[in-house]
Amino acid sequence: MLQQPANKTELKKLGEFGLIHTLTDNIKLVNTSSKLGVGDDAAVINQGDKDLLVSTDMLLEGVHFDLTYVPLKHLGYKAAIVNFSDIYAMNGHPKQLTIGLACSNRFPVEALEQLYEGIQMACSAYGVDLVGGDTTSSRAGLILSLTIIGEVEKDKAVKRNGAKVGDLLVVSGDLGGAYVGLQLLEREKSVFMDHPDAQPDLEGNDYILERQLKPEARKDIVEYLAEIGIQPSSMIDISDGLSSEILHICNQSNTGCRLYEEKIPIDSTTYNMAREFGLDPTVCALSGGEDYELLFTIAQSDFDKIKNSPLLTVIGHITDISEGVQMVDKSGGIHPIVAQGWSSFEEE
Amino acid sequence: MLQQPANKTELKKLGEFGLIHTLTDNIKLVNTSSKLGVGDDAAVINQGDKDLLVSTDMLLEGVHFDLTYVPLKHLGYKAAIVNFSDIYAMNGHPKQLTIGLACSNRFPVEALEQLYEGIQMACSAYGVDLVGGDTTSSRAGLILSLTIIGEVEKDKAVKRNGAKVGDLLVVSGDLGGAYVGLQLLEREKSVFMDHPDAQPDLEGNDYILERQLKPEARKDIVEYLAEIGIQPSSMIDISDGLSSEILHICNQSNTGCRLYEEKIPIDSTTYNMAREFGLDPTVCALSGGEDYELLFTIAQSDFDKIKNSPLLTVIGHITDISEGVQMVDKSGGIHPIVAQGWSSFEEE
Repeated sequence: MLQQPANKTELKKLGEFGLIHTLTDNIKLVNTSSKLGVGDDAAVINQGDKDLLVSTDMLLEGVHFDLTYVPLKHLGYKAAIVNFSDIYAMNGHPKQLTIGLACSNRFPVEALEQLYEGIQMACSAYGVDLVGGDTTSSRAGLILSLTIIGEVEKDKAVKRNGAKVGDLLVVSGDLGGAYVGLQLLEREKSVFMDHPDAQPDLEGNDYILERQLKPEARKDIVEYLAEIGIQPSSMIDISDGLSSEILHICNQSNTGCRLYEEKIPIDSTTYNMAREFGLDPTVCALSGGEDYELLFTIAQSDFDKIKNSPLLTVIGHITDISEGVQMVDKSGGIHPIVAQGWSSFEEE
Repeated sequence: MLQQPANKTELKKLGEFGLIHTLTDNIKLVNTSSKLGVGDDAAVINQGDKDLLVSTDMLLEGVHFDLTYVPLKHLGYKAAIVNFSDIYAMNGHPKQLTIGLACSNRFPVEALEQLYEGIQMACSAYGVDLVGGDTTSSRAGLILSLTIIGEVEKDKAVKRNGAKVGDLLVVSGDLGGAYVGLQLLEREKSVFMDHPDAQPDLEGNDYILERQLKPEARKDIVEYLAEIGIQPSSMIDISDGLSSEILHICNQSNTGCRLYEEKIPIDSTTYNMAREFGLDPTVCALSGGEDYELLFTIAQSDFDKIKNSPLLTVIGHITDISEGVQMVDKSGGIHPIVAQGWSSFEEE
């Protein structure tokens, strides 16, 4: 009955970020309270003496999670954490959460109670109020949509576009663990599919499993930076992988970057399990994603304030755009950094 | 692999509102900025000298819309309007919108551009900024999740729970049109399925089709009430049908209500088309839903301010809870009002 558009450009040609750009490129903000729109971890809205931060995440069964090995309580916890992480990535603190939930009748009420238990555990741990949402039926499994509202001191939100030549590139925690944890769960799932009586072999790998199943958001880092008096020049959280996030900062800041492979923090459990799977641990860190660590840039003059912190690692520095976005490998070879993070439109 | 919950209560036993109650009953708000949580058209957050309103809606293909006869541009427009309506229902004005979009590769980029064109048309018409969102792939058609942030003067948000005995029950516009418009579209769809060459017979029914396909939110009513100096004691928008919304107000305000059938405003196009379908026009108004009119209560002393308004109709009054929630029919018979609005968990 309906006319189809005359031109048809496939989504996978554009990818997620290209699509967002195409759909939102012509937006002009009209309300004076709208300080920052599409294109960062969160939007910024001015209200009185505070700035508010708003960010939305959607999670779909079969795309973002597999209920074969993700308990619903963990799913709820992680969904909330991922959403909170976007607010920390703006240097703010999450305060109010709304949840859109669509599910089919195959989920009993008790299953949804477990999901909400996980969400509320995360809310309690991070001081967030669940204030509203929408609940509806789905013909296609479980779908979650979370919107988080956070607060930041007026004009203190840290965007992606403020990195300056000479700034240090800093990351919290360690990288690659969530991705390697996922590989382990996928392996045990296929063992289980072939041999339903087999017990999963997960021993000794608590750390990477927790990185995948029960990640935390870096509230402590935002508090620590405030405490030591550092206002990062740019910041983002690592959801799609280090490469992808470095490119976001450099593209939006109009800079290049030099990243040193040997500096990338990788936990020994991650390292060993990556090797067991025949994976390059550096690639897991660069492209794995879901680590929810904070990646940010600071002035060189702030180096002394962080140099002894066990929470933070300097992994490179910002260069002129003409020098490109590059990684120096352990042998001194130089490679351009390309986005290899998860792109949701490519695999179907 | 995973343990299933020992008890299994089917979702349809609880229904949408029962489920929300079960999942959110034990929530305690911890942030002083969180003024009102789950259970109204929007949450209320205090910031400086304003109160902010937040509301989320999810819309799923095959559950909430049928792309056979809903053009994507109309879908975008309506999705935004429905979301804005929740803010007007709190006596506020929508300001910032975020969009979660999940879709499969069967949608070309140009189709999504049409969807966003509709969303942006609604944003322009209502002075709203599209400030962010999330875009991902779906294995199950198109899914939209919208979160709207609105503003209201401090302490001027109108909740559902403030109706007082003796208050007048008032509705804007007319009811039942969106539901009858949907019946017409469904009929023409089945004609089309049987005879793909047939042209749809929609002539003379622009009004009810527009009520279904391109509804408007009642910004004008919120502005008008401010202009004539009326602060409603309770308010809700009509998304699920007049019965359901009256019950929300009465349940949350601990009151009864007397509704007069002969007062319910129904447009002649709606009336005639309902009759053509063998439907009772009053039932279409009571249970049809999707009209996005505002239903509110005002003090009797405010009656003179609205009595000549062509925008508003007094359809009943609030009574003591002991008198029940009742409708007086055109012959003087008295009937309890029961919720027959759309319940998304019942039909699967």
